[in-house]
Amino acid sequence: MDYTLLNSIQDPNQVRNLNSNQLLQLADELRSFIIDIVSQKGGHLGASLGVVELTIALHYVFNTPEDLLVWDVGHQAYGHKILTGRRAEFHTNRELNGISGFPKRSESEYDAFGVGHSSTSISAALGMALASQLNNDFEKQHIAVIGDASIASGMAFEGLNHAGVTDANLLVILNDNAIGIDPSVGALKNYLTQVKEGKNPRQNNMIKSLNFDYTGPIDGHNLPLLIKELNRLKKIKGPKFLHVITTKGKGLQLAEENQVKYHAPGKFEPKTGKIIPQDESNLPPKFQDVFGLTLVELAKTNKKIIGITPAMPTGSSMKFMMEAFPERAFDVGIAEQHAVTLAAGMVTQGMVVFCNIYSTFLQRAYDQVIHDVALQNLPVIFCLDRAGLVGEDGATHHGVFDIAYLSCIPNLIIAAPLHEIELRNMMYTAQKSLEHPIAIRYPRGRGKLLDWQQEFKEIEIGKAVSLRKGNKIAILSTGTIGTDASQAIDQCVNPEDVAHYHFPFVKPLDERLLKEIFENYTNIITIEDGTIIGGFGSLIDQWSRKNHLKNNIYNLGVPDAFIEHGKVSELRKICNLDTKNIINLLNTLITT
Amino acid sequence: MDYTLLNSIQDPNQVRNLNSNQLLQLADELRSFIIDIVSQKGGHLGASLGVVELTIALHYVFNTPEDLLVWDVGHQAYGHKILTGRRAEFHTNRELNGISGFPKRSESEYDAFGVGHSSTSISAALGMALASQLNNDFEKQHIAVIGDASIASGMAFEGLNHAGVTDANLLVILNDNAIGIDPSVGALKNYLTQVKEGKNPRQNNMIKSLNFDYTGPIDGHNLPLLIKELNRLKKIKGPKFLHVITTKGKGLQLAEENQVKYHAPGKFEPKTGKIIPQDESNLPPKFQDVFGLTLVELAKTNKKIIGITPAMPTGSSMKFMMEAFPERAFDVGIAEQHAVTLAAGMVTQGMVVFCNIYSTFLQRAYDQVIHDVALQNLPVIFCLDRAGLVGEDGATHHGVFDIAYLSCIPNLIIAAPLHEIELRNMMYTAQKSLEHPIAIRYPRGRGKLLDWQQEFKEIEIGKAVSLRKGNKIAILSTGTIGTDASQAIDQCVNPEDVAHYHFPFVKPLDERLLKEIFENYTNIITIEDGTIIGGFGSLIDQWSRKNHLKNNIYNLGVPDAFIEHGKVSELRKICNLDTKNIINLLNTLITT
Repeated sequence: MDYTLLNSIQDPNQVRNLNSNQLLQLADELRSFIIDIVSQKGGHLGASLGVVELTIALHYVFNTPEDLLVWDVGHQAYGHKILTGRRAEFHTNRELNGISGFPKRSESEYDAFGVGHSSTSISAALGMALASQLNNDFEKQHIAVIGDASIASGMAFEGLNHAGVTDANLLVILNDNAIGIDPSVGALKNYLTQVKEGKNPRQNNMIKSLNFDYTGPIDGHNLPLLIKELNRLKKIKGPKFLHVITTKGKGLQLAEENQVKYHAPGKFEPKTGKIIPQDESNLPPKFQDVFGLTLVELAKTNKKIIGITPAMPTGSSMKFMMEAFPERAFDVGIAEQHAVTLAAGMVTQGMVVFCNIYSTFLQRAYDQVIHDVALQNLPVIFCLDRAGLVGEDGATHHGVFDIAYLSCIPNLIIAAPLHEIELRNMMYTAQKSLEHPIAIRYPRGRGKLLDWQQEFKEIEIGKAVSLRKGNKIAILSTGTIGTDASQAIDQCVNPEDVAHYHFPFVKPLDERLLKEIFENYTNIITIEDGTIIGGFGSLIDQWSRKNHLKNNIYNLGVPDAFIEHGKVSELRKICNLDTKNIINLLNTLITT
Repeated sequence: MDYTLLNSIQDPNQVRNLNSNQLLQLADELRSFIIDIVSQKGGHLGASLGVVELTIALHYVFNTPEDLLVWDVGHQAYGHKILTGRRAEFHTNRELNGISGFPKRSESEYDAFGVGHSSTSISAALGMALASQLNNDFEKQHIAVIGDASIASGMAFEGLNHAGVTDANLLVILNDNAIGIDPSVGALKNYLTQVKEGKNPRQNNMIKSLNFDYTGPIDGHNLPLLIKELNRLKKIKGPKFLHVITTKGKGLQLAEENQVKYHAPGKFEPKTGKIIPQDESNLPPKFQDVFGLTLVELAKTNKKIIGITPAMPTGSSMKFMMEAFPERAFDVGIAEQHAVTLAAGMVTQGMVVFCNIYSTFLQRAYDQVIHDVALQNLPVIFCLDRAGLVGEDGATHHGVFDIAYLSCIPNLIIAAPLHEIELRNMMYTAQKSLEHPIAIRYPRGRGKLLDWQQEFKEIEIGKAVSLRKGNKIAILSTGTIGTDASQAIDQCVNPEDVAHYHFPFVKPLDERLLKEIFENYTNIITIEDGTIIGGFGSLIDQWSRKNHLKNNIYNLGVPDAFIEHGKVSELRKICNLDTKNIINLLNTLITT
């Protein structure tokens, strides 16, 4: 397809000048363009295909950027980006120095609010709408577009509950496709399905009960209808709610049929949608699969084991547990707060609960970790996937704060395995006998070992490991970044000068070994894939101060800045956390 | 009243043997006993008076502690404590080594789940119910009692949304009295009010829409009716919902009439309910009032100022702003997540937003602070009341983690005033021109100054202050605990040896002054009212390591343990944070 019409659109003003046939053509071109670029460059496909018509209708009817449009999560905003001046840069999506995969205020005035985590859009748009009232601007429109998986999260309910008692000029559009990344779950989802199917005698009342002017459900792929409805709603004051039914992956048959796979399918054949096969037979496993498969292995013998995921069955590989033991695995939807306290409740009844939450999303359940789990010393086993720099998802998704925000919590054990086998053994140890809650953090992506399915070994909580001896300098690392540290040692001017200790446990620290290390080495380097402030290195600093030790310590980690998107290797460089920088530091210390 | 019947109740088994007249008498005695003790000893009154009948009915009908009863928040659980073996200790409520003001697992097997923060009960009880199913126990009952203010919080919705798609044996009891600590707000509250008044044509559908078996509303002070309904519900399988209407403060006329004041009225005359007047004319102000009154003062000239509180108009003194500028002050209910992102949305439209949240409750909105505020560098002004040890509310409520969990967040300024005047000036400075978000933490209770309403002065962000010079030792303190440090210096063996620096800003640190301090003093003591791990002292430790400074540093603060309830002065002793301990440390350093 050539993009005659699309190429003529520099900003939404030009969309507003199109006639109805041209709008339909624009939808075709936009959909095709998204498929073309994402098929080559990767990224999130299905969500944006599902809102092509809605995106055009919104920019056609509303006066963006004066009117304020907030996309929830933002996976679906590719069309929005392309129509708002970023068509030419769209091929740089998710690349270092390219455009972000999510709406971002610093990137465009059309991105009214930065997103990435879910369920923030109603609160943000309501804040804008209330501010407009106070600014005596009663014409400005404020629109939140939110999916059915995101609206089921507690925060969205809080926003609705507040909006319903205001007369703010707020339009909430429910983009109901019955799926988030995985299929939506929960009672609200069932209710919405009944509404869609015309089966519910109490149709629509739930939203009306919250004092919204409810319209729908309407077909979200009928562009003229969408335009008509939005034009009508624009004139209605107060909180309004439009229920739109869409199909995730719309327009690419395979994507419609395999919505989970085509959420972010990687590279594929743009015409057919066929995913370009990768030979993965000789690759080490993804850490998420080490988690998922190990959990099933353990659950076979330990009948008390339960798995919980908040809406990430596929991403966390909890799906293996859900397949093997459906009655013992729970996808609770985008509800991290509930997930954590649910786990705590289960543990009071003697269950062994693996609660798997991405590091960045555990921020959503911080209070529950403190108040419901740690304070009661309930041994929930948290598995924090995507810890550390996550790469292309960028600043909203890096799991770099967890050590800092968890290490101040009493009773909680914090662990970070060096490799797949250690992750397995940590899981094995945790389910066997644990007197405290534990958080095991591990990174996104693949490990390094092919023969990772070794027999389980119990490990000692709080014990650190000497990986190699050395003469002058000691590297103390935690987590998989220890492998990079090892490589750096190999490549420095005198590897024999450098000792390396791996700390599988950030808390409790192995104080006995620390004393030995500090006695033997003047120069200590700490390395971690997390913030320097409050991180593993900071705990070592504090421990050494407490013990009045005068060694030189160098803390390597993520600096005090939000790190953007790009390849993990590129981001590590930005953070001075790459092998080369470690080598440089080693060489400086060795030669001076 | 003598407590003939109540005194015979050692545990709920004895309640189950009473006849219907005796049960009514027990209700009278229990209500009177609560009034008697709370009138002398203080504590939370209104909530427990409102559920006297419900408490008796629950223990009468259900086989506690086998059946699991979770009280949301726990303010209302005094009757429960008294009937479950803690009558004799009830006078020690909220005292050091006495019983906790909240249900607590370590205190009694009848306290199925520890509470304090709101809206956790449904998740916890559902976790228990699902665990019981897996344990093949289909007789066990699981009950969550939750108020109408708490059920409007997002986490409760997440619990309902999950419960509705299970067949768990869960009974949610909505204790609907239209008030939390302050009157309930929000669209759900309006909906419930309509249901109560029989006005809503769509009556009850919202809860039914979530697939609960709904009963109600019924009169929560009609004991026979409650018993009948609970007995009926006990036989129904799956998720059930009982809507009970109660009156907060029931049975004490003044408490019914002034529900906000009698939430926790302090000492009062038990017969009449008349609060025993305290002469407060010569007392320094409460910090919350310094905040509340200063906000109104600033809002008079700065028309962009907005105030937000999640359900704490009285506790935070946001009520002054709500009275003075009702259109610019928002009580959003128990919805910290929404409060923070609402603030962020407002700031995008040029508003100057003071978002006041207790330190312990900001834990509920941690992700929103990172993802919606700091990442976008939106200058929201967070005022964190109740920072540090809070005293009688105990472990669930101490605001001791905030420095640790906030200091790892880029862009965020963290401030802690020494006294009332500095709090005012920080607020003044923040609303005047701020390029970053800021969190200003200050303690519960009263300050030290009578003449605190001084003219505003702008202060320099990041600048620390020398309070006194000294010869040998430097104390670095942040926040109001600096006053205790000053007293300790005065009382040590040689005050002239001790310098004192106050750090109004934990982040950014005043590095210029720090360098000077570290050059001049070998021994450095850091003091803060927060966790040692990840706290102000830890930042100083790390800074000094980074700069390869070899001074001796002593970090004083809250140790790595959950601190129980008691007077702040008692808890400080436990933490080695009291004046005496500081003096001891000073004397040791001076004399060695």
